[in-house]
Order: sequence, then structure tokens, then C-alpha cells
Amino acid sequence: MIGNFTYCNPTKLYFGKDALEGLKLELPKYGKNVLLVYGGGSIKKNGIYDRVVGILKECGKEIFEDGGVMPNPTYVKLCEGIARARAAEADLILAVGGGSVCDYAKAVSVSVHCNEDAWEKYFIRFEEPSCEIIPVGCVLTMVGTGSEMNGGSVITNHAEKLKIGHVFGEEVFPKFSVLNPEFTYTVPKYQMVSGIYDIMSHILEQYFSGTDDNTSDYISEGLLRSLIHSANIAVEDPKNYEARSNIMWTATWALNTLIAKGKTTDWMVHMLGQAVAAHTDATHGMTLAAVTMPYYKFILPYATEKFARYATQVWDVDPTGKTKSAVAYEGLERMEAWMKKLGLVMNITELGATREMLDGMVKSTLIMDGGYKVLGEKDVRAVLSASF
Amino acid sequence: MIGNFTYCNPTKLYFGKDALEGLKLELPKYGKNVLLVYGGGSIKKNGIYDRVVGILKECGKEIFEDGGVMPNPTYVKLCEGIARARAAEADLILAVGGGSVCDYAKAVSVSVHCNEDAWEKYFIRFEEPSCEIIPVGCVLTMVGTGSEMNGGSVITNHAEKLKIGHVFGEEVFPKFSVLNPEFTYTVPKYQMVSGIYDIMSHILEQYFSGTDDNTSDYISEGLLRSLIHSANIAVEDPKNYEARSNIMWTATWALNTLIAKGKTTDWMVHMLGQAVAAHTDATHGMTLAAVTMPYYKFILPYATEKFARYATQVWDVDPTGKTKSAVAYEGLERMEAWMKKLGLVMNITELGATREMLDGMVKSTLIMDGGYKVLGEKDVRAVLSASF
Repeated sequence: MIGNFTYCNPTKLYFGKDALEGLKLELPKYGKNVLLVYGGGSIKKNGIYDRVVGILKECGKEIFEDGGVMPNPTYVKLCEGIARARAAEADLILAVGGGSVCDYAKAVSVSVHCNEDAWEKYFIRFEEPSCEIIPVGCVLTMVGTGSEMNGGSVITNHAEKLKIGHVFGEEVFPKFSVLNPEFTYTVPKYQMVSGIYDIMSHILEQYFSGTDDNTSDYISEGLLRSLIHSANIAVEDPKNYEARSNIMWTATWALNTLIAKGKTTDWMVHMLGQAVAAHTDATHGMTLAAVTMPYYKFILPYATEKFARYATQVWDVDPTGKTKSAVAYEGLERMEAWMKKLGLVMNITELGATREMLDGMVKSTLIMDGGYKVLGEKDVRAVLSASF
Repeated sequence: MIGNFTYCNPTKLYFGKDALEGLKLELPKYGKNVLLVYGGGSIKKNGIYDRVVGILKECGKEIFEDGGVMPNPTYVKLCEGIARARAAEADLILAVGGGSVCDYAKAVSVSVHCNEDAWEKYFIRFEEPSCEIIPVGCVLTMVGTGSEMNGGSVITNHAEKLKIGHVFGEEVFPKFSVLNPEFTYTVPKYQMVSGIYDIMSHILEQYFSGTDDNTSDYISEGLLRSLIHSANIAVEDPKNYEARSNIMWTATWALNTLIAKGKTTDWMVHMLGQAVAAHTDATHGMTLAAVTMPYYKFILPYATEKFARYATQVWDVDPTGKTKSAVAYEGLERMEAWMKKLGLVMNITELGATREMLDGMVKSTLIMDGGYKVLGEKDVRAVLSASF
């Protein structure tokens, strides 16, 4: 565990088939006005909206609606949400949806009492909030982002062709999150496997860095094995509670700060995927999947030892009589085969990217320096070119 | 992840060589009067006491001493601590030491404002506190118990020959803990390996239960692999920072509620070990080590599948061409060889237990029902008899 670090994650989680009961314990802690944030309205079809509204009324809350949060929440929508929250004098923001809805709720929460431009302050200058923060609670209906137990918030600015994430400190973490695996049953398969790959990428982005001693890497290997085991079951049998619950729990721990402790982290797959999304508006997890193999094949020579460990510990590659490099590549091959079997999109063409967008996507790619190799513009272009 | 559960762990951790700086951020949050709790005085020899007192004074605190907490803190000492905390009108209890000191601090924290007998209320009737709880902070100097990030508190009542642990809810968790791996360098080897085995036993007690799907089990396997890796280094080179820091971090996550989520847990090794300790006052981790092999050999036939998984995933046993049972036993053999190499005490005779104590130890053993087999009195006698 290198360096000095702090760990604090105060989010209270209610998990299981009766998790929504937790709302009744949490709501009395906050004032009367609740901004109810949700997405395209699927929660109205599957009954979750009615159940949440029922509990809000039972707890004597005044409900102010803010629906229509899109999969890649935009700066324009954020401005609308800020205005709604101000008008409502919201005491609590309750996000009912997937990671986008939770991300959006957090962005609103730090902007309501902020006098500056939220995009400039939080997503360009990466400043921390200096104003009062409205508390956020989540009822999760889609799995993947980990937004239910972290300070992350990703907002897309279409005018600037930028999709940028800010990881806020623990004061912005949701105060509570309701995690009922059954709420994820109605998510279409495309979204489900996209979420599963988002989880996997979160773990790998933190795993592929640093030395082999780190406890965080051992925990990551455990999470990866669990995810692969349960994904294989869920993709065949989406209503398998045990599998869906394990995926949900793995998603939360994949990105709640734990497995990044005591090490540097990479995040280039996310930076590349977000650049693709900024130009195509494609589903987050699929953008990650589509750039993964070109990126990992590019950096493998800089981290053969770690990729070989990954192959043996996660993909059960037998290293007997093989070079480290051969073991490492065999691990990637197994991963690639698994991704295809899962139904992930393996190229950006299928996501709507064209060669004409290449310059723009290269320009939109933020460069991180925590991985095994800091990419130059030429490298980014090479990886994205190989992703078509 | 079976059943419904909640997760919340609000303890803030400061980790690393500069972790003590965290004290300066935390102390201003509390009132003037600090009860400074510590053990036999080793912190006065290694300079940690002076550094802590320096920061307390710098932060304008009034210090009230409560030293002499013994390795198995007693009910008699607890009563003394309650009286001291009351006299000091303590606003904060700062525990500087290992798990015993942290455990003791928590027991004092829930008893100062309690009008009932603390032993009867918390350790016999297992009630939750209904009074004001004094906040606790920890500066850890020994690794193993995980007490720095949980609600556990184990107290020994010599008059009744009982050593009993109460796992309190999150309101009793330390508000903050300072984890500097360097503070553990001066711990004698006997105590260090004892702590390492305490960590291992915490993980295994939660691992050996339930089905093979559970995400918690995958995380546990990661923690176990990390612990074995780093223990092998630390036992040869006790001042290896990387190894000691990984062991410290693993210890915290081995018992801060995470890896028990969504499953039942066993804890019979602890119940047997605590019965031995109640009669011998032997070091905690050694009592666990001394009863482990007889207990696991006893329950293996009831959980062959899980012990075989343990053998392959944690001890790298090659299962090719072997029965599940053979794989499972080979795992235990590798574990036993590793324990001996580490220098653990492998029988209770060496810890001072005699055949004359057997009846008493059997009587002192609490029976838990979360493992693969609920032990009868005859079983407990058989396991303890095989531990001499």
C-alpha cells in the first residue's frame, strides 16, 4: 500500500428484496421537499415509481418531479435540474434510476447553492464545492457505474463535445442507497451486459497499475472472478436472483474507492470510451468494451508481468512451460472470447463512430498518467484507429 | 448475496507513514477532555506516546490517563475505565494500542453514561446501548483484530471464566483510526505472527459457510492470498514497509463487516480459542491457531466442496485427477505447513492448557450456528481434546 491515503465511505446501503423499506428509515431524517429525479420513464412501467412515490407520501413529503434524465446526462439538463431544485427548495434529491440518474443528482446537489457556472467549476476546473450541498439518496434500478456509493458524476457537454467525470469527496457521496437486485430484472439485455462490462472495466482500470504486492489487486481479482462467474449465469438467466445480486454488490465495490487505495490507477479505457461517447452518444459500457482490446494489446508490452498474473489469477491460464508474454496474451484472448459470448460490442463502428470522427475523438480524449504507459496523441490515434 | 442486509461503515481511516497527521484534523471536532487509553507502556518506549501527547497538547486538549489495559481486557479493568472516564468528563476516548486497547475503549464508551451493569447488559444480554456514547478514536500499534474499523469489543470476566465479544452497531465504531504500518515494527515476532493468524482466522470464519456463489467469498480469497504473500515477507523481514502495510490493510478489511455480507458466518474457531484463553490467558491469535487444525479437520467432511475450493483458490493445489476430498485435505496440509513455518503455536498444551481444564473449557465454549455443522458438547470436547 504505497503512499499516504485516507478512506471514508459513509454511504448507508440497504440491500436485498426488501431494501426499499430502508427508505422509510431514511426519509424522516430530511426536510419536507424532495426533488424526485429519474430517467426516461421505465420506472413508471415497472411499478418502481409508484412504490417510491407511495413511500414518499407515507412519510409526508412534498414531491417535485425532475424526470427525463438521459443516459449521458447533459449540461443543458443539469441547468434545468438546478432550476427545478431551486424552485422546489429541495431538502433531499432522490435519484431513482441507474448511474446516469445518480451522477446527475450529485451534479445538481453541488450546484443548487453555487453561484458559479457548474460546468466550468466542477468539470473544467475540477474544483470542490464550497457551498451547501443538498443531500442525495439513490434507489438503483440499473447496475454498473457504482455511482450509488461514490462521489463520481459524469456530465456531457454537447456544445463542447466533452464528456467529463468529476470524482467528488465523501461529502457528495449519496447519504443512502437502496439496492434491490430485483429492480434490475427488467433492464434490457443490451443494457445489462453493458453494465456488467462497465463494472469489469472499473476493476481493471484500477488493477492495471503499480506493483504486484498490493492488497487492492488481490481484492480486485476476487471481484473479477465473482463478476465473471455471475455474469455467465445472468446472461443465460436474467432473473437468477443470486447472480444478479452478486453483480449488483460487485458493481458497488468496484468503484467506491476501496480497490484504488494504496496505488495509482489507469482510467485510459474510460477516457477513450468517453471520447467515443461524446461523438456518438453510445451506451457507456459498450464504448468501453469497444476500445478495450486495442488498448490492452497496446499497453501489454509495458506490463507483461501484470497481464500474466491477470491471465493466471482471473482466467485460469495454465502458465506451465509458457513465456510470461504468451501467458499474458492467452489471458487477453480468453477475455476477448468471453466478451463476445456476453454480447458486448467489440468495435466503435457498430456504435456509430466513423473515420471522419477520428480527429475529434482523439482531441476529446483526456490523457491520464497513472497506468503503465502515458499515451501520446499518436498512441491515442493508434488505439482508436484499431477500434473501428 | 442471500437475504436482506444493510452496510454502513463510517469510520474514517488515515493510512501511511504520515497517518498521525490525521489526528490534527480530527481532534478539533471534539471537546477538550480526552481519556488517553493504552496498554502496558510499550508506546512510552517507542516514542508513540510522546508524539500523540504532543499533538493532543498542540490541539489544546486536557489529557486524562488510563493506561495498563491488558491483552485480554478484564471486566475489573473496564469498571476502572468507566470510573476514570466519568471523573474526566471525557469528550473523546483516544485508544493508542492494539485491538485489546480499542476493544476496551469501545466498552468504556458505551458504559460511561449507562446506569446498568456493563458486563450484564452488553456481554451477557447482548443489548445495544441506549445511552449517550462517547466517541472513540484509535491510533493502532498492533495489527490483527480489525477493531479499528468495527463495533467489536471482547471483554474477559475472570470470576466467571468467560471471554465474550459483543459486536456493536455502527454508532459504536471508532470515528477515526490512524494506521501507520511503521508503528507495528517494534511488535515482537510472537505478537506479530499471532496477529497475522488472527486476521487469517477472521477471514476463514466468514469464508467457511454458505454457497460458492457469494461475492464475499471471492473477496475473502483475495484477502487471504494477499495476507499469505505479505506474511511470508514480513516474517523474514519485519521492517518491510510494503508487507507490513498490506498486512495492516488486510486486517482492517478482514473484520469490518464487508466480507460477512450476504452470508452466514461460522466463528467456532474464535469460540474455541476464547474458551482456551479464558482458562489460560494465552495470546488471542495463538489460541486460534492451536485449535484450527482439529476444528477444520472435524468439519471438512460437512463442507468438502468449499474446502476443495479453498485448496485450489488460496493454496494453489492442483486438482487434476484427485477427488474433491483429497484436494480439500491437501489444502489443509499446505495451510498447516505454512502455519508451522510462520511460528504459530499448534497446540493448546504449549499455551498452558492442561487436561484438568478440559471440562471447564468445554463449558466456556459458546456454540454458534452459522457454519457447516452445529457442534454438540461432545464435538466441542473432541475438538479441544485433539488440540492438546
